[in-house]
Amino acid sequence: MQKNESFILQCYELAAKAIEHGNHPFGALLVLDGEVIFTAENSVLTEQDPTAHAETNLVSTACRALGPEIVAQSTLYTSTEPCPMCSGAIGWVGIRHVVYGCGANTLYKITSGEVNLRSREVFTGMGFNVVVEGPVLEDIGMEQHRGYWGR
Amino acid sequence: MQKNESFILQCYELAAKAIEHGNHPFGALLVLDGEVIFTAENSVLTEQDPTAHAETNLVSTACRALGPEIVAQSTLYTSTEPCPMCSGAIGWVGIRHVVYGCGANTLYKITSGEVNLRSREVFTGMGFNVVVEGPVLEDIGMEQHRGYWGR
Repeated sequence: MQKNESFILQCYELAAKAIEHGNHPFGALLVLDGEVIFTAENSVLTEQDPTAHAETNLVSTACRALGPEIVAQSTLYTSTEPCPMCSGAIGWVGIRHVVYGCGANTLYKITSGEVNLRSREVFTGMGFNVVVEGPVLEDIGMEQHRGYWGR
Repeated sequence: MQKNESFILQCYELAAKAIEHGNHPFGALLVLDGEVIFTAENSVLTEQDPTAHAETNLVSTACRALGPEIVAQSTLYTSTEPCPMCSGAIGWVGIRHVVYGCGANTLYKITSGEVNLRSREVFTGMGFNVVVEGPVLEDIGMEQHRGYWGR
């Protein structure tokens, strides 16, 4: 299996854990030198904090634990393409490589969301040169979202 | 003094406190029914977390303490126009009225920043109907930034 696919599958597992824990189906992790160094789940509902997305949780806790210099060198894998808030957070901490599973447009079709600002546009608009790869194994993420959002 | 000006002056005082505490000069607060219900400062340096902007700190801690339903009804005042990450956070928590002191373009001229994505564009791109007012008393914020960033 490709390296990207293996890490995205781990993100989908984290997203499944987030559901089990009473939250929305999103998970993310950081990889440095081929090793997973930090993982996080969405915790919006259990912490009653709409900003507690998997990616914001991940970069904030990882920076506080490891220091932003280490985090900046890692690649961020996430089950679904980062929203504008998360893209801004990823950019500010200095991460320059992002891989996502399910595309934002696929998610928003399922949730009837209206977000038209994609992660690549946020990175470009903020002057951050971020390599963005995805979608990866999108069918699996799409099915997970359909199951959770009931559509 | 106008109501907006009074609250923005309080934001500049919070930004001054942030400097005293070893952080970047940004402060923000929430107003509900004419009363300040929550305040926050930037804590990027002391918490070694580049995502700990005044606005993200504010909305996250306020939601966890008061619940997002209360926070969503309030007006957010901030010393400087919110960045894309913070605009996303403000949008997700449901706040629909933002007032800023110093404009982002004024800040970025001082810091040589490259952010070209304004808060209004982020709100629109995310489908959030947010009323944004500002700049308010910008000269005071501009001088504070010049003093801090040394330019």
